[in-house]
Amino acid sequence: MKMYDLINKKKNKERLSREEIEFIVKGYTEGTVPDYQMSAFLMAVCLNGMDHEETAALTVAMAHSGDLLDLSRIHGIKVDKHSTGGVGDKTSLVLGPLVASLGIPVAKMSGRGLGHTGGTIDKLESFPGFSTTITTEQFIENVNTIKMAIVGQTANLAPADKKIYALRDVTATVDNISLIASSIMSKKIASGSDVIVLDVKTGSGAFMKTLEDSLALAREMVQIGTIAGRKTYAVITDMNQPLGNAVGNTLEVIEAIDTLRGEGPEDLLEVSMTLASYMLVGAGVAKDVEEAEKLLVQKLEDGSALNKFAEFVRAQGGDSRPVFNTELFAKAGLAEAVTAPKEGYITYIHTDEVGMTSLVLGGGRETKESLIDISVGVKIHKKLGDHVTKGEALATLYANDGNKLKEAKERLLKAYVIGENKVEKPKTVYAIVTRDGITSF
Amino acid sequence: MKMYDLINKKKNKERLSREEIEFIVKGYTEGTVPDYQMSAFLMAVCLNGMDHEETAALTVAMAHSGDLLDLSRIHGIKVDKHSTGGVGDKTSLVLGPLVASLGIPVAKMSGRGLGHTGGTIDKLESFPGFSTTITTEQFIENVNTIKMAIVGQTANLAPADKKIYALRDVTATVDNISLIASSIMSKKIASGSDVIVLDVKTGSGAFMKTLEDSLALAREMVQIGTIAGRKTYAVITDMNQPLGNAVGNTLEVIEAIDTLRGEGPEDLLEVSMTLASYMLVGAGVAKDVEEAEKLLVQKLEDGSALNKFAEFVRAQGGDSRPVFNTELFAKAGLAEAVTAPKEGYITYIHTDEVGMTSLVLGGGRETKESLIDISVGVKIHKKLGDHVTKGEALATLYANDGNKLKEAKERLLKAYVIGENKVEKPKTVYAIVTRDGITSF
Repeated sequence: MKMYDLINKKKNKERLSREEIEFIVKGYTEGTVPDYQMSAFLMAVCLNGMDHEETAALTVAMAHSGDLLDLSRIHGIKVDKHSTGGVGDKTSLVLGPLVASLGIPVAKMSGRGLGHTGGTIDKLESFPGFSTTITTEQFIENVNTIKMAIVGQTANLAPADKKIYALRDVTATVDNISLIASSIMSKKIASGSDVIVLDVKTGSGAFMKTLEDSLALAREMVQIGTIAGRKTYAVITDMNQPLGNAVGNTLEVIEAIDTLRGEGPEDLLEVSMTLASYMLVGAGVAKDVEEAEKLLVQKLEDGSALNKFAEFVRAQGGDSRPVFNTELFAKAGLAEAVTAPKEGYITYIHTDEVGMTSLVLGGGRETKESLIDISVGVKIHKKLGDHVTKGEALATLYANDGNKLKEAKERLLKAYVIGENKVEKPKTVYAIVTRDGITSF
Repeated sequence: MKMYDLINKKKNKERLSREEIEFIVKGYTEGTVPDYQMSAFLMAVCLNGMDHEETAALTVAMAHSGDLLDLSRIHGIKVDKHSTGGVGDKTSLVLGPLVASLGIPVAKMSGRGLGHTGGTIDKLESFPGFSTTITTEQFIENVNTIKMAIVGQTANLAPADKKIYALRDVTATVDNISLIASSIMSKKIASGSDVIVLDVKTGSGAFMKTLEDSLALAREMVQIGTIAGRKTYAVITDMNQPLGNAVGNTLEVIEAIDTLRGEGPEDLLEVSMTLASYMLVGAGVAKDVEEAEKLLVQKLEDGSALNKFAEFVRAQGGDSRPVFNTELFAKAGLAEAVTAPKEGYITYIHTDEVGMTSLVLGGGRETKESLIDISVGVKIHKKLGDHVTKGEALATLYANDGNKLKEAKERLLKAYVIGENKVEKPKTVYAIVTRDGITSF
């Protein structure tokens, strides 16, 4: 088999076999296929496409390019959730304890990632003493006893995806559904879960800006998961404004705790409940979404979910007292409101810019080496469709540095568009994609 | 300007400006644009195309990436001919002396190239003492006095093309009309001629197998030449069988001499006369093709063209006696006929395989380091439409090595298809493409 011939096949719109795709992925990972051949191939894929089977073969080949997590020592059906990323997305912190409180094992491997806030690991470090550098033994022990544990990513998961992603990033071959879907799903499949629930964001703050593109990505990922033998569900959720009101590490932990206490923002609760319901259905704990929701509401109302969160924090060495009194979290030194320059309605939010505001304050990483200030961030007071009077607060910024605060204020002001006519609030959940089709709301 | 954005533009089927194309070519030549970005860009060009202006901009940018030959010290209008390559193509050896005998300067820079025979330089080394390592001074002096000189390629002509071609060759991005046309024309434009006559081959032994593709390539090259301010003509000629009967270095020189003596094969004469006519018209020596042909026939009949060839050989240190007695050329030690396995008509010739037969005998280069045996080769006795009886000679092979001869015989036999029904002989010249349009024959 020669890479030249395989590039040529895709250039001529021919289908590649599983063996051919494995050859490409293996060759590129090992270095026998050079960058310049791979980038020509990726451009041919972007322009001529791949069908579902080719995409699934690519995903599985990438998943098998490195370590495969062996979760067999964890009892029960393993359920994983993945979000395509958005601003203010703290659903993992709500979902984890909620699902674990129903006896479903939540075994999460998490990275530190780049972006406007840190990853889940960074957020959890709001709890003094909390550590994700636990041994595999302790990780599995924790999951088996308290049903929830999070460990920093140490395994060499899907290195082919990592290498291919870096190449796509510099050769304008990012925006292809097959390549995006296989990149996400290869890591999920390597992580060893039986059930995968995907939160596909759509809107101004999401990777996919239109509902159409988000649905296409969701369908492709569900297809891949199904072909790879995983129960897979995708929920299309709104990202035309931040999810909930908090953006920033500790601020998001506090909002997650509020939600577990039944006092969180509605949109965050709705997204969390929807995702959790499909996790329950996938795990076989509930026969349908209605039954799942009843079980979840009960665990929220009786405090089990909140207690599970505290139990989990303690099990990984953290001080769990702030779970019951969020005033105990370390706070930023400066707080300042950003006020509306005129009266009107919030007609558009440049959601990415709200994320950038948090990054500018020091709450996220620009490079892998950046240090994060977990106490800083943004609290949104006005969302789409809301009315504001001139001088009314749009948001409050929390900072530890006056200069950064100044820059952040300008950013946040630019993020808001105030118009004369009221617009409708966006839906929170747009659609559910399963192997059987799409249900729209 | 960023290469990423330019790749993205071509991926999205947008037009690139002249400045953008210059940025790409300059960046790739200098190494600031890496191979992997260039190959992604080339694949996008293959799949989304370039228009005439983009193609011309690419050509001119590649032409200007290295040295530009300055032919200003040569008197008169400089005329150049280029062939897209075929088997048995010795038209340069006929044309050169013929055109020079009419006072038109023929200043040729030639490489050694890969392929089934050597380049024009290798062929001319059939004359003992002939040298192409002459100084620029002597080269220009020879062209000004005897109107013809050939020098080995020393200048750094269109290095961008060389680098891009090497990349295309390993990334399945060869077969795009814009890229092929710009590659050829960049070198022609860097060579500094005022008039360019292109011999675009079509058929089983040509790079372009169909008349349609050959016409498209011809049109593109004529467009480029015109935009670059060169008088450009393209002649579409047949390559469904070798041109003339000889394939091999000295064998081809002999056939060229026969043609200059009025005793060559008809197809070679027709192609040579057609190309030469357009060279005369382009140079302003004849007002039209009819007048050009009259002038050319006269120079053939009165021996001027043959004498010019001898004068040229002498001027570059060669023994010119073989021009008047081809028996003086060094001969291969072995000669063997390849005979027809059955009676019938020649219905198809795998022309590439006839070329490979010459290569196998040692007459061409597989790698740049290969040594050439200039005396070996193939003489064809039967061409398309000819009748053969069983045991009649299809061709004679000339060799210096018994093992190679055996392999060559098998190759040549496979090149011939003998059928029951007579097929028509192909045309020799199919069409002329000028800036004003296409004339078909």
